[in-house]
Amino acid sequence: MRAAFMYGAGDVRIDTVPDPVIQRPADALVRVVAACICGSDLHPYHSMPVGEASPMGHEFIGIVEEIGGEVSTVERGDLVIAPFAWSDGTCEFCREGLQTSCLHGGFWAAGGIGGGQAEAVRVPLADGTLVKAPVGEDSEFLPHLLTLSDVYGTGYHAAKRANVGPGDKVVVIGDGAVGLLAVLSARQLGAQQIILMGRHKDRTDLGREFGATDVVADRGDEGIAAVRDLTGGHGAHKVLEAVGHMPAYTQATGVVRPGGVISRVGVPQYEEAPVGFGSLFGPNITLTGGPAPVRAYIEELMPAVLDGTVQPGKVFDRTIGLDQVPDGYRAMDRREALKVLIRP
Amino acid sequence: MRAAFMYGAGDVRIDTVPDPVIQRPADALVRVVAACICGSDLHPYHSMPVGEASPMGHEFIGIVEEIGGEVSTVERGDLVIAPFAWSDGTCEFCREGLQTSCLHGGFWAAGGIGGGQAEAVRVPLADGTLVKAPVGEDSEFLPHLLTLSDVYGTGYHAAKRANVGPGDKVVVIGDGAVGLLAVLSARQLGAQQIILMGRHKDRTDLGREFGATDVVADRGDEGIAAVRDLTGGHGAHKVLEAVGHMPAYTQATGVVRPGGVISRVGVPQYEEAPVGFGSLFGPNITLTGGPAPVRAYIEELMPAVLDGTVQPGKVFDRTIGLDQVPDGYRAMDRREALKVLIRP
Repeated sequence: MRAAFMYGAGDVRIDTVPDPVIQRPADALVRVVAACICGSDLHPYHSMPVGEASPMGHEFIGIVEEIGGEVSTVERGDLVIAPFAWSDGTCEFCREGLQTSCLHGGFWAAGGIGGGQAEAVRVPLADGTLVKAPVGEDSEFLPHLLTLSDVYGTGYHAAKRANVGPGDKVVVIGDGAVGLLAVLSARQLGAQQIILMGRHKDRTDLGREFGATDVVADRGDEGIAAVRDLTGGHGAHKVLEAVGHMPAYTQATGVVRPGGVISRVGVPQYEEAPVGFGSLFGPNITLTGGPAPVRAYIEELMPAVLDGTVQPGKVFDRTIGLDQVPDGYRAMDRREALKVLIRP
Repeated sequence: MRAAFMYGAGDVRIDTVPDPVIQRPADALVRVVAACICGSDLHPYHSMPVGEASPMGHEFIGIVEEIGGEVSTVERGDLVIAPFAWSDGTCEFCREGLQTSCLHGGFWAAGGIGGGQAEAVRVPLADGTLVKAPVGEDSEFLPHLLTLSDVYGTGYHAAKRANVGPGDKVVVIGDGAVGLLAVLSARQLGAQQIILMGRHKDRTDLGREFGATDVVADRGDEGIAAVRDLTGGHGAHKVLEAVGHMPAYTQATGVVRPGGVISRVGVPQYEEAPVGFGSLFGPNITLTGGPAPVRAYIEELMPAVLDGTVQPGKVFDRTIGLDQVPDGYRAMDRREALKVLIRP
């Protein structure tokens, strides 16, 4: 089969590799119907040292082609959604809804498991991992369902961890797909005011469609001042940080209200950050977030997708074949595309 | 009157200064009946540069001697508890129970307001700040009520911010007065297991009396391993950090369970700390806490103090007069005393 591999920064190729096969009784084999490129794939695209080639992609939906002897929740022919982490569904963390900390799980494109930017994927712990969607592979809902693999669930995680609720003033930092779906999630959870910080008008326009009440294009001190003006002087109750770079963290501490919450879902590209009296401690700010256990949210979010209440798949503004994946990375890196959908 | 002043690291003196007087209609004048020395007073005791003398003390109870024309909630002769921050009680933050961020409030021993280690204090915004206790100045409950000024409310804040509840496994880092009262608070909130990390047996014994189910004297990797053993391998749901030094933060990230909470009430003696993928983000750890709005908790905690259910004043193991305050600092600094009560 064909699959995407990264060989180093800026170097993505499509290779032909052996077809995956069932290796364990809990495995399922999934033919990929739709996959995509994630904003977080751009981090190695900028910085990966040349070395062993790494499979790519952690978001996909597909058709179950074959199942191992222990698999009971999905069967051949089902259209399934794969969350970006695979998990057993039974350990104490899975039962609490923190599948990204599953005691027996892991991540795609690592440890001998392939990536989603491929024609097929061997799915370990299929019963815990896959969620059947009640549609066929020609469904018009496919792009929307695909966002449940990662970006929608990740935006929702930001809002849930921040405990966004009615009456809240919310700031979303970042106008990438996750930021835009954090806007949508905050609206679903009843936020009163949603200020989207981003500077790409086509994206912030989609953010307004998703529920943003205000857009702030300024950054740094000017951005902080603009948010404070919009929130009556004291900042936002909840800040959803969907970027992962240090300036976004600084922005977050600048726009959050005393007693408020900063919820991060952008993968931090730093390890140390200010948390002392002058930043988090003095004003009793809570810092939360992490890799979203999107598996926990798929059943919760799917109904509004399938009845058309929300259309999270609008974040896809380009569709390509597997052979065009290197172009897809380039387009997202140059911000010519917001999020690229792949039809292998 | 006499009052304690710090002139620099290790240099505390009792000076005679003019008696405080009512300056504004919202002021009250309080004669101090009991005050104390705080673990956080030891931070400047170690590091304060020589310069202008600073008044000291932020925990006191006393008798109202005089009130300004606008004061209506306390009157002359009342025994009152002063929380460690003064606040108006009416701004949006006070109404939300975050009096340490009061828009018009402040802290003792700063900005022209005296400290509690003195014979008398001018209390600004008396209606918002002071809470009347229904006992006289000779009450046996005085030491217990005095803890509502800071240490008990601060330990309680750690537990509340961490949302400690039934079934939780809790670690408390630090066997000072705040740590011990965080133990007591976690027990009141229904924690199933409370592991106290501390190495002073007389203190950890009091911790056991307050509700600690386990004591871990080890620190560093050994301490982390001991906690993991005690919690079934994965660490504690909630970690209450009552020290403020960097090793305590490192300890907290080491003993917290994925998806868990670190709640800090020890004033951080650092500004930057690890918060990235390898510490907080990857395992979805929440970092919370800050200066406790103890004013919000006084009415809630007082009944169990007055009916003898809890005896938080057991943290006081030495009582001195105002003239012995310099000795009191020395005793706490050398850990000869856990917490020193002052009877001016």
